[in-house]
Amino acid sequence: MNVELLLEYDGTSYHGWQRQKNARSVQQVLEEAINAITGENVRVIGAGRTDAGVHALGQVANFKTNTRIPLEKLPYAINNRLPDDIVVKRARAVPEDFHARLWAKAKVYAYTIHNASFPSPLIRNFAYFFPITLDVDAMKRAGSYFLGVHDFSAFMASGSAVKSCVRHIFRLEVNRQGDLIKIEVEANGFLYNMVRIISGTLLDVGLHRICPEEVASIIESGNRDMAGRTLPPQGLCLLKVVY
Amino acid sequence: MNVELLLEYDGTSYHGWQRQKNARSVQQVLEEAINAITGENVRVIGAGRTDAGVHALGQVANFKTNTRIPLEKLPYAINNRLPDDIVVKRARAVPEDFHARLWAKAKVYAYTIHNASFPSPLIRNFAYFFPITLDVDAMKRAGSYFLGVHDFSAFMASGSAVKSCVRHIFRLEVNRQGDLIKIEVEANGFLYNMVRIISGTLLDVGLHRICPEEVASIIESGNRDMAGRTLPPQGLCLLKVVY
Repeated sequence: MNVELLLEYDGTSYHGWQRQKNARSVQQVLEEAINAITGENVRVIGAGRTDAGVHALGQVANFKTNTRIPLEKLPYAINNRLPDDIVVKRARAVPEDFHARLWAKAKVYAYTIHNASFPSPLIRNFAYFFPITLDVDAMKRAGSYFLGVHDFSAFMASGSAVKSCVRHIFRLEVNRQGDLIKIEVEANGFLYNMVRIISGTLLDVGLHRICPEEVASIIESGNRDMAGRTLPPQGLCLLKVVY
Repeated sequence: MNVELLLEYDGTSYHGWQRQKNARSVQQVLEEAINAITGENVRVIGAGRTDAGVHALGQVANFKTNTRIPLEKLPYAINNRLPDDIVVKRARAVPEDFHARLWAKAKVYAYTIHNASFPSPLIRNFAYFFPITLDVDAMKRAGSYFLGVHDFSAFMASGSAVKSCVRHIFRLEVNRQGDLIKIEVEANGFLYNMVRIISGTLLDVGLHRICPEEVASIIESGNRDMAGRTLPPQGLCLLKVVY
């Protein structure tokens, strides 16, 4: 049976999703929990390879199993073995060839900036604190230039090796609610650090260091140095995977 | 000079506000930070003695100092010495006889219940997870019986020694927003664990184990055993102190 899991996690204590040799990852902890209850040696495939410190409200993963634990009991059984910063919210059977990453049509990420005079202890692990007031209207205008199919080489961490840097951004919204500025991006795929570099660029726009119209030429340049800096991981959250 | 501070803190890693011999408290960490920058040996008075694991969005404290650090720079100077789970959001001069606790006319606490099928890693330290759907309308009706001046002995942790258990609750609101049920209570003072026991009683009302009208007789009984259980600390937050 091929099982799909819906996951939420607080990434603060993990070195990202992907299994690593000398660091604790979400994938590893999840696999160990599933192995413990099924007695199998499963391999879990995640839709998004979230980085160290990045969170997920709606990560999707799948794994093959012959377990006789009823599907509706599986989330409770797995959660029993998981630390409280990772939770399985749903388990369901999917076609044998379903692959959480390859089948994903789109993913939605949100980057949250806490734009206030003083940092907030209560949200410090879930937002990036920035004390200078940002011009959200300018950020909204800049956001529209990201929409559509582009080569996003300028918004990829250097050193990444991918075949193509062309991605399709379906939606990019910037909204302020009180002290929080939320940047929500939906795309058919993301390059390494792409949302964090887009957010860093929008932050520069909010500071009037980059004008909204300039975003078009930054994209066109394909030059990482033209875009803003990579904002830190704690502001980023994988909201949803669309199939 | 008598200085008033407005504080926010994540209480997860502290044994409450009050200085203790063998445990780390918010008061102690704050005093150490102020001592380090002023070179004085200050004593900080807090308005609310929050328990271990309880948070504050608007705790107020005061201390006497002869420091020559300008008031407007004081928050930044103190924050520089504080861990990132405590933040000073404001400092201002107050009358010499101002006392953060004795002068407080009212305090506002909020208790948050996360009422959903599965726990949420992202809010696990700031809400109490409860998986059975609660009847919020019944909880609202029950809430009205707490209003006014009552002897709240039934809603005080046993073993507390206070002169009088009479308190005045000015406002008690129960609201659901999505999966979160927020119980907000404003009173002229609170007994030990009072909000957590009120919230535990409202939870029983939400489960139809106690009917809303029964709250009046529970208050009248003065019997701790008649009220609900003490909900855990992480759901509680001191929102505001009114002077």
